[in-house]
Amino acid sequence: MRSNYFAVLSTIFLLQGALFAQTNQTSSVEDFKPATTNQQGKLYPAVNSEGRVRASISAPEATKVQLDISAKKYDLVKDEKGVWTGDSEPQDEGFHYYQLWIDGAAVPDPNSLYFYGASRWGSGIEIPAKDQEFYSLKNVPHGQIREHIYYSKYNDAMRRCFVYTPPGYDKDLSKRFPVLYLQHGGGEDETGWANQGKTNLIMDNLIASGKAEKFIIVMDNGTWRPKQAPAAPQGQRPAGFSLPQGWADDFMKTLTQDIIPMIDENYRTLADKDHRAMAGLSMGGMQTKTITLAHPELFSYVGIFSGGSFTLDDLKATPKFKEGMKTVFISFGSRELENRRAGFGGDPKVETEAIKAAGMNAHFYVSPLTAHEWQTWRRSLHEFAQLIFKN
Amino acid sequence: MRSNYFAVLSTIFLLQGALFAQTNQTSSVEDFKPATTNQQGKLYPAVNSEGRVRASISAPEATKVQLDISAKKYDLVKDEKGVWTGDSEPQDEGFHYYQLWIDGAAVPDPNSLYFYGASRWGSGIEIPAKDQEFYSLKNVPHGQIREHIYYSKYNDAMRRCFVYTPPGYDKDLSKRFPVLYLQHGGGEDETGWANQGKTNLIMDNLIASGKAEKFIIVMDNGTWRPKQAPAAPQGQRPAGFSLPQGWADDFMKTLTQDIIPMIDENYRTLADKDHRAMAGLSMGGMQTKTITLAHPELFSYVGIFSGGSFTLDDLKATPKFKEGMKTVFISFGSRELENRRAGFGGDPKVETEAIKAAGMNAHFYVSPLTAHEWQTWRRSLHEFAQLIFKN
Repeated sequence: MRSNYFAVLSTIFLLQGALFAQTNQTSSVEDFKPATTNQQGKLYPAVNSEGRVRASISAPEATKVQLDISAKKYDLVKDEKGVWTGDSEPQDEGFHYYQLWIDGAAVPDPNSLYFYGASRWGSGIEIPAKDQEFYSLKNVPHGQIREHIYYSKYNDAMRRCFVYTPPGYDKDLSKRFPVLYLQHGGGEDETGWANQGKTNLIMDNLIASGKAEKFIIVMDNGTWRPKQAPAAPQGQRPAGFSLPQGWADDFMKTLTQDIIPMIDENYRTLADKDHRAMAGLSMGGMQTKTITLAHPELFSYVGIFSGGSFTLDDLKATPKFKEGMKTVFISFGSRELENRRAGFGGDPKVETEAIKAAGMNAHFYVSPLTAHEWQTWRRSLHEFAQLIFKN
Repeated sequence: MRSNYFAVLSTIFLLQGALFAQTNQTSSVEDFKPATTNQQGKLYPAVNSEGRVRASISAPEATKVQLDISAKKYDLVKDEKGVWTGDSEPQDEGFHYYQLWIDGAAVPDPNSLYFYGASRWGSGIEIPAKDQEFYSLKNVPHGQIREHIYYSKYNDAMRRCFVYTPPGYDKDLSKRFPVLYLQHGGGEDETGWANQGKTNLIMDNLIASGKAEKFIIVMDNGTWRPKQAPAAPQGQRPAGFSLPQGWADDFMKTLTQDIIPMIDENYRTLADKDHRAMAGLSMGGMQTKTITLAHPELFSYVGIFSGGSFTLDDLKATPKFKEGMKTVFISFGSRELENRRAGFGGDPKVETEAIKAAGMNAHFYVSPLTAHEWQTWRRSLHEFAQLIFKN
């Protein structure tokens, strides 16, 4: 978040009187506005009311330029000044990674801010969402995102995590807080939840409206990377989070042996099972399932976002989990369920209803009209945060 | 610093057995290693013992690809696989911004981490320095970099600064600390000192070795941007920090009316003149001069890095500055002095010796073999930090 989402504040007005570049999309509604994820003062990429992305870049000597977003490439068209411009099809509301192709080279868009995902730092774009109020920057009391560097004995290495401390943390020095350990997905890292996830703004707004308790959130790197991992070919995922070998066990040891004790030593936490939660998205959700089933003595609240669900067999195998977990939260994007991308074994909705019938306080949430993407996970955190540390 | 300087830990070994790409620089010493500023697992850009940068990118259909660094473009050469590779001339030790040109398009290198400077988020590269130990990541007690979002009455806008809190800040809750307000240069922002400036590592290492006092560092955005500023043409500086009109006065009001009171309210500061310092680089140094001369009642220590100096006329015009400033620190890179780029009026060394002769505790530092660039400013902070809050 040392990138600057404040850029939008000074770019919105810039479109007044700006001329739109030529485009090959005659079908696009001409109400494009600069993306809020643009660098300061950049008019493109722009997004229209249909959710189409219009990219534009000067490349006078290029023969082919494409916009690459949501796994589809769109040809841009060159104007007399050598500026290439073109539109994508409508995108889901929320955040998407993208890149440009210039004569066979895959590069970031020089006009966008950069985010870590798809195993690289690269371009990202925000498609305005009907419900974006819940993660918008407002004049309310704000918590902080802290970069915390520490030594991990288990890894014998220096590591780095980000810690969200709620508004007022530095005012009332006698108060102690519960802790949520929140994990990113495969090909992402400890920066994801704080940058494109908008964790701090989601929490600041929830706390300001009295809908969530104040708690600390720890965002660390759950990527499992074998020693001597080979380099990744450009555009491909590096070795490191290939499932299943090692991935969960490795981070489980780092979390239980190093991270949790380090956090309890350095922050004013309520350092017990009753005041500790874990959640994660995709790979982070699978890790959350494995770790909370292996250590039910450590956690009382668990959330899995687009990362599977708990079954009656899980409960049978781990009675302590069934007895000790105060809240279980499972979520997916509606498009994941439609596309059966949720298939981590059975039907997560049926499985969640089953463990609820078996007596657990289980919740199943579906993010409307989103897929395996950040808008699903922002909404999931927004829902989950309102359920925990209240009972 | 949500970008990942930890990448180097796992990339160094990758060169073992890696084949070097063809290059048009037959003169380069073949001991290239991946830059520490590369993204995870990327072999290029690489740097050799001469300080040459070897860039490499796949662009099969491109007709011309160039590496653009230190205001000079170098043609890359295409191999049979469509991968373009080439070397720059030797670069100064330290950090440099750079970009690639692909058939007329200026783009970031997809292999590098990204930094804000030259008025854009783009590629940066680290050239190993003989003295890099002072800003290297070590297993010592670490402070934190905190993102602090706040409302500015003067600007009637939400703003964001980064705050360094020293090691142990959260342990002994009775202790209070002095504060240094540290400003970036033109075309940079509040992220510069914390990312490429390595402020936290410089301070953590100094404190661990007992060479500096523990103090808080506030890094805010000193850019002056007029309302309704026009958009910047690609690759050019946007309106916003054109000197001299308004630039210093605007940030001076933000600093004195909003930032300092906000910091004293939210952190355990020693909130008086004796325990407050200001320093800045280039434009930030000029702002520091203007602000400390206008408000000698607020500061006791002042540092100007590559941003001018104080003269006898300044002291004559502002007796309170002469009486009240405990330490004045002026610095430049040796190449700036050679190239007369230091020319902000007279000779800064002569001027500094003059105010010293006039009774001020003035220091003049020259960074060896560096220009108007970050290695000069890292070294300047390293020197300045050892002089303040001790008397």
